[in-house]
Amino acid sequence: MMKNICVTLQYDGSRYNGWQKQGNTEETIQGKLEGMLSKLFEQEIEVNGSGRTDGGVHAIGQCASFKVNTNYGPGKIMEMMNQYLPKDIVVVDAKIVDARFHARLNAKSKTYTYRIGTGFSRPVFGRQFVWYHPEEYDIEAMKKAAAYFVGEHDFTSFCGNKHMKKSCVRTITDISIQVVENKLGDGDFPELQLSFTGNGFLQNMVRILTGTLVEVGQGHRKPEEMQQILEAKDREAAGFMVPAHGLTLMKVVY
Amino acid sequence: MMKNICVTLQYDGSRYNGWQKQGNTEETIQGKLEGMLSKLFEQEIEVNGSGRTDGGVHAIGQCASFKVNTNYGPGKIMEMMNQYLPKDIVVVDAKIVDARFHARLNAKSKTYTYRIGTGFSRPVFGRQFVWYHPEEYDIEAMKKAAAYFVGEHDFTSFCGNKHMKKSCVRTITDISIQVVENKLGDGDFPELQLSFTGNGFLQNMVRILTGTLVEVGQGHRKPEEMQQILEAKDREAAGFMVPAHGLTLMKVVY
Repeated sequence: MMKNICVTLQYDGSRYNGWQKQGNTEETIQGKLEGMLSKLFEQEIEVNGSGRTDGGVHAIGQCASFKVNTNYGPGKIMEMMNQYLPKDIVVVDAKIVDARFHARLNAKSKTYTYRIGTGFSRPVFGRQFVWYHPEEYDIEAMKKAAAYFVGEHDFTSFCGNKHMKKSCVRTITDISIQVVENKLGDGDFPELQLSFTGNGFLQNMVRILTGTLVEVGQGHRKPEEMQQILEAKDREAAGFMVPAHGLTLMKVVY
Repeated sequence: MMKNICVTLQYDGSRYNGWQKQGNTEETIQGKLEGMLSKLFEQEIEVNGSGRTDGGVHAIGQCASFKVNTNYGPGKIMEMMNQYLPKDIVVVDAKIVDARFHARLNAKSKTYTYRIGTGFSRPVFGRQFVWYHPEEYDIEAMKKAAAYFVGEHDFTSFCGNKHMKKSCVRTITDISIQVVENKLGDGDFPELQLSFTGNGFLQNMVRILTGTLVEVGQGHRKPEEMQQILEAKDREAAGFMVPAHGLTLMKVVY
């Protein structure tokens, strides 16, 4: 019986070249999933993610859907997947969805969080998920700057793909910036966490937005400049791109 | 000026052969520290830990002391150490201590925590620090069994070193066993955490105690048997040894 399955995935993206399958290499999340599912169910299976994550980016709530001809229920499918997936990928939820459901096309919003370690000592535990960059940040200036990005805008200046031919208009519904205390034993590992919620994000967009906001936080740019950066529609106008490993896809809403 | 420095360390023990320096290999925590400090201060430096941790065991609050001839203060020494230590070791505190202070000889008590993952899905984040063993555990039976170990006992049955010639008498002041909820996104990763506090622990002792308590929890042994195991003074009488990676040295008290 043909079923359309939607799974929620968590992965440590450290050793992967991102979500999207590339040629013959299996070192992508999509590649790992399709290879494993196709073997497991002895049929060609195509997996659609809610969106691509860059190489090195992690996920706590990535969603993906695939069609499979099987009599197993979603609980059993999840159990089987977890048995055969590598240790850095896990399925935490699985359900049967309508045959027309597609994890990317039906996604209403996504939330990404970027973590910056700002303490005196660099973290050892969880270091793979935090960019350690202990500077002084002007949080209020960063919040002011972030406000320019909320709403519907052409984010060409924040797109890492220079050959992007489609529309770069996206809507960001919320950006939250907060200082999170993080104590472990005698160690203090405070973080600056930037969370972005929107209907979709361009390639590298969250990392370029974060880099630009970091420049504001360090006083290298003024919040008002954000307007000009958006209007420039030019990648050169925006700030630098922060490293991938600080970024995690937190949630996809359908 | 000769100073005696006590540092608090955190490390991810995954890739190390434990604390203690062995021959020429530098792949031990002590070896890494001594190699780095000796280079940094251009003098032979010996580092004394509060105790040895087994290969693969982690620390959130390991303490170590060393003597160094320097004009730098402890804050600066800590900063320099963190600059040159590998990413999986960090100093979170450093202070000058009395010349007679010795991290092992002066340690009054240590606390170790063993983490067992018991959820339906195995954890991806933090998987390096949790032994995933999703069984049904009779917590009350485990607590009853643990009570036999509290106090001063000869722990020969729980010593992994068959050639141990010194006394195996140690005092355990507290064993706590608790279920800890651990939610991450849509994933539930509950853990069973066993914490042991005592004046000292023999080689592998916490891991053999935990393995024995796990056997009780799974109904393979009765709590009352613990008395006989202690009295046997024979490693064969006790249970199996759980894997190293679930164990973390949490705290040393002086």
